[in-house]
Amino acid sequence: MEILDRLHRHAERGLTERERLDDLLDSELVGTLATVVDGQPWAVPMLFARDGDRVLLHGSTGAGALRHVAAGAPVALCVTALDALVVAATTFSSSANYRSAVIRGVPRPLEGGRRREALELLSERILPGRPTEVRAMTRKEIEATLAMELPITEGSWLMKARTGWPSSNEEAGAEPDVWAGVVPVVRGHGTPEPAPWATHSPVPESVTALGCAG
Amino acid sequence: MEILDRLHRHAERGLTERERLDDLLDSELVGTLATVVDGQPWAVPMLFARDGDRVLLHGSTGAGALRHVAAGAPVALCVTALDALVVAATTFSSSANYRSAVIRGVPRPLEGGRRREALELLSERILPGRPTEVRAMTRKEIEATLAMELPITEGSWLMKARTGWPSSNEEAGAEPDVWAGVVPVVRGHGTPEPAPWATHSPVPESVTALGCAG
Repeated sequence: MEILDRLHRHAERGLTERERLDDLLDSELVGTLATVVDGQPWAVPMLFARDGDRVLLHGSTGAGALRHVAAGAPVALCVTALDALVVAATTFSSSANYRSAVIRGVPRPLEGGRRREALELLSERILPGRPTEVRAMTRKEIEATLAMELPITEGSWLMKARTGWPSSNEEAGAEPDVWAGVVPVVRGHGTPEPAPWATHSPVPESVTALGCAG
Repeated sequence: MEILDRLHRHAERGLTERERLDDLLDSELVGTLATVVDGQPWAVPMLFARDGDRVLLHGSTGAGALRHVAAGAPVALCVTALDALVVAATTFSSSANYRSAVIRGVPRPLEGGRRREALELLSERILPGRPTEVRAMTRKEIEATLAMELPITEGSWLMKARTGWPSSNEEAGAEPDVWAGVVPVVRGHGTPEPAPWATHSPVPESVTALGCAG
């Protein structure tokens, strides 16, 4: 329901394409980073965070293919949200409501203070408020992590989406009394589970703020 | 909760890697198909279905890059499930529990009866039971759709996963009283919404069987 409402709101508010892109990037945590290694396609899932006109990526400095990317390989970052099953009166006209974006470019490695800033932004994005509840990252921790930024520039990204109802039964070539509609796909957080050694520590605000779907 | 329970069950049951792969592929509907076009990385989200030792893909015959793939380009299909946020006592040790698979190969286009069979399997997988509630696909509909199979063979796929608790507070270099644990990411279906012309048709079994998370 929440997702459908948001889509309806978009249509009403007449968001620009770029605003729709930002909305998608800010609602998803995981994208798929595709690149080319020795002429072959290569893909890996990755936590990411948008910060203004850039997407921040990170990974262990030990990850070989990430080093390949950090060394200047072009990438395509694909981010997808499945919003609803679109159930038409025929299987051919059935579909899915979704939003997806592909951002192309050459990620730039971040060093020193810019790396620290990027890693802090990523942590804040993945669990808002958490960085202020724990100690700051040490220099050693920052050195052990690759951070990169992928610029969002005009023409560097493409968004595709499907929203709304299925084709009508008549368009689909089906009897008029066959049910058609959409089934929203919803996502939320389950009950937080404390680690065995942390059962007596209070659950932090960053975690309770996520809410709990049950 | 459901997802965590499933992970615990896996550990208990000692599934093979291939069983874990099948379980992931059978629990997700959307993957990211990566390929190389003119030396550049290219990626697109795609509904898919596993059928035994193959993954079925489909798309419009009008989609240019898909035709490139159907003409013999190697691909990497990446499928990811985000299972939980892993909240350690430091941001550096925080992470995510996930399962992901990359399947490499050259998809084979399917024609005639094999194409029809693949499209029916895809429809059944995306909404189980729906194909028996609606008319069969017409020959024209089948001709308008590309269908391909990507074989799952030994060495053609790689699975990566993280499960379980974060590093201990001691390992993370944090005070012992800082909370640490996991927050499950759950997914479900919202209330089905009939299309404006179908409000008087009964909701079909295929849709009610999905359940509703609210």
